[in-house]
Amino acid sequence: MAISRRTFVAAAASALAARGQQTGGRKIGYCIIGLGRISMNEFMPGVLKSDKCRITGLVSGHRDKAERVAKQYNVPETSIYTYEDFDKRMTSNSDVDAVYVALPNSMHAEYTVRSARAGKHVLCEKPMAVSVAECKQMIGAANAANRKLLIAYRCQYEPNYLKAIQAIRNGEIGKIELIDASFGFNIGQNEWRTDKKLSGGGPLMDVGIYCLQACRLMSGEEPAEVDGRSAVIDHDGRFETVEENLVWSMRFPSGLLTTCNTSFGTNTGGWFRVYGSKGKVEMEPAYSYDGLKLSINGKDATVEDHNPLQFTREGDHLADCIVDNKQPKSSGEEGLRDIRILMAVYQSCREKKAISL
Amino acid sequence: MAISRRTFVAAAASALAARGQQTGGRKIGYCIIGLGRISMNEFMPGVLKSDKCRITGLVSGHRDKAERVAKQYNVPETSIYTYEDFDKRMTSNSDVDAVYVALPNSMHAEYTVRSARAGKHVLCEKPMAVSVAECKQMIGAANAANRKLLIAYRCQYEPNYLKAIQAIRNGEIGKIELIDASFGFNIGQNEWRTDKKLSGGGPLMDVGIYCLQACRLMSGEEPAEVDGRSAVIDHDGRFETVEENLVWSMRFPSGLLTTCNTSFGTNTGGWFRVYGSKGKVEMEPAYSYDGLKLSINGKDATVEDHNPLQFTREGDHLADCIVDNKQPKSSGEEGLRDIRILMAVYQSCREKKAISL
Repeated sequence: MAISRRTFVAAAASALAARGQQTGGRKIGYCIIGLGRISMNEFMPGVLKSDKCRITGLVSGHRDKAERVAKQYNVPETSIYTYEDFDKRMTSNSDVDAVYVALPNSMHAEYTVRSARAGKHVLCEKPMAVSVAECKQMIGAANAANRKLLIAYRCQYEPNYLKAIQAIRNGEIGKIELIDASFGFNIGQNEWRTDKKLSGGGPLMDVGIYCLQACRLMSGEEPAEVDGRSAVIDHDGRFETVEENLVWSMRFPSGLLTTCNTSFGTNTGGWFRVYGSKGKVEMEPAYSYDGLKLSINGKDATVEDHNPLQFTREGDHLADCIVDNKQPKSSGEEGLRDIRILMAVYQSCREKKAISL
Repeated sequence: MAISRRTFVAAAASALAARGQQTGGRKIGYCIIGLGRISMNEFMPGVLKSDKCRITGLVSGHRDKAERVAKQYNVPETSIYTYEDFDKRMTSNSDVDAVYVALPNSMHAEYTVRSARAGKHVLCEKPMAVSVAECKQMIGAANAANRKLLIAYRCQYEPNYLKAIQAIRNGEIGKIELIDASFGFNIGQNEWRTDKKLSGGGPLMDVGIYCLQACRLMSGEEPAEVDGRSAVIDHDGRFETVEENLVWSMRFPSGLLTTCNTSFGTNTGGWFRVYGSKGKVEMEPAYSYDGLKLSINGKDATVEDHNPLQFTREGDHLADCIVDNKQPKSSGEEGLRDIRILMAVYQSCREKKAISL
């Protein structure tokens, strides 16, 4: 559809006016729930680079730490909350439009539901939750409160991913025949990620989910069948409750087969390769916070613009969805799809047989 | 053990004398069974570069072609045989010590058995055969005739493979946690490789076997369980009787998990990656006739010496085994191990469940 400059300017002015109406002419305010590494080192610095968002509240179990962070981000001391009272007190804080849930996986459901009930939109880290039932509760709570729910699949907003998907849809590699994806790292001792009560599972939940996303995003299909096997090699106390290594394959309706592996015992580099009848799309590294490298049919095709940061992009996307009343791209339903598949992979590991979806 | 120069020289002279005794002071003579691409383009030029072997006979269904090739390799016209009479006539030809079986897979067993019964040692292309029973017949025939049987696993003699295995055994990458391996290409129409009666199967038999070898050689272990899935995407006449794409995983006794894929529908490049607790060994390309690239812990570790050729090395190894009365490294038993595993992968594809070995 052709659009005249006048129409475009009018539409842009109207969108800005709508944003002004809904947010009072200010940036969307995020309350950060959980001041861990991903909040402190990634998401909050990402918001600092945004012209659509700002940090307006903090939830932490450590008041001292929270006060230091509050000063850094100009958050009023009255907007520092505890895990016990945040939802009751936050309801009346009109500077908080949304929360960023950056807690261990098993807490995602509770804090998403409480935030939605407190009238706040939710950006929740992945994996969405530790069970399909929890995902459904989260979607239900957001819908009931008429709030947006975005799962933090930062790669869905990353320009190399968008370019790779476009190249594949344009037929540049022909029919997709196979996909390989791998993401693993060597985890330290005493990480919450290796405590199943907090994590819901091992590397599959934490980093394997990126491989699943790569297969689904690049193919544009949903898996019909999965097959998984897991193992523990290092009996050094890290893997008492979760798997150390896990490999799985998926069969898609087109006939596409994919192989994935994930690990807490080795650094696999984090990459994927999409093999087509006419060529190949490769990304390596494919899952890091920046520096992604894309190759299409053997030629470097990397998008060099890594600004704004991936975390800025996902924060901005929720802000846009709030202002424009749109469904987030990486919605609760999208998070649920992955959890359903990951749970089927674990079931396949337990039952040693293919699981149909 | 320390060895003085005098002792060494004496031992070398004695070995040369032994070779002279057993072969009459001449090179080991190979009769080539099947004048296809791998014979004409790879093995025979490889023998030309050897100082241990020579070509002394030809078996072909095309007399004209055989006569042209015979001239090129100085093979007497009386040493050109047909598929019908080669074993009867070759028995009395003392210039033929061994045969090189380079026929479609389903013919490996018959021609190996007939050659052994004719009193000749056998170098047989991989895959060894199309069933476990055939492999056992081949081993039995070679043993009964007191002849050597070598399966043409050229990578087992390739210096980058030997260096990679040594690095892993030396602990340079720590414990092996995961292995990925991939080998596929886009096959043409009307290839015998896509006719199951001749090939016994699709890409798994033809190129997937290299991935299996990579996993077994690098780990030094035998798989305990396999899981496979196959698919056909391109319904263009090529895949009426064999799979187009196949993915499989293997579990090894140590807990090591491996993922492999193979294809006749896409060029995957041909590579493997061994992920250890402390580092990584990568080879890419890993299965081509030359130009292999090895990386150990992120550093290029390629052995640049690709002379003599891989085919020279395997031909020479059988010559050494004949002269020194040694069991070949890539023996019939080694070939049988792979066929047993490949058949289990196919069984898993059919039954959609894990198969224990």
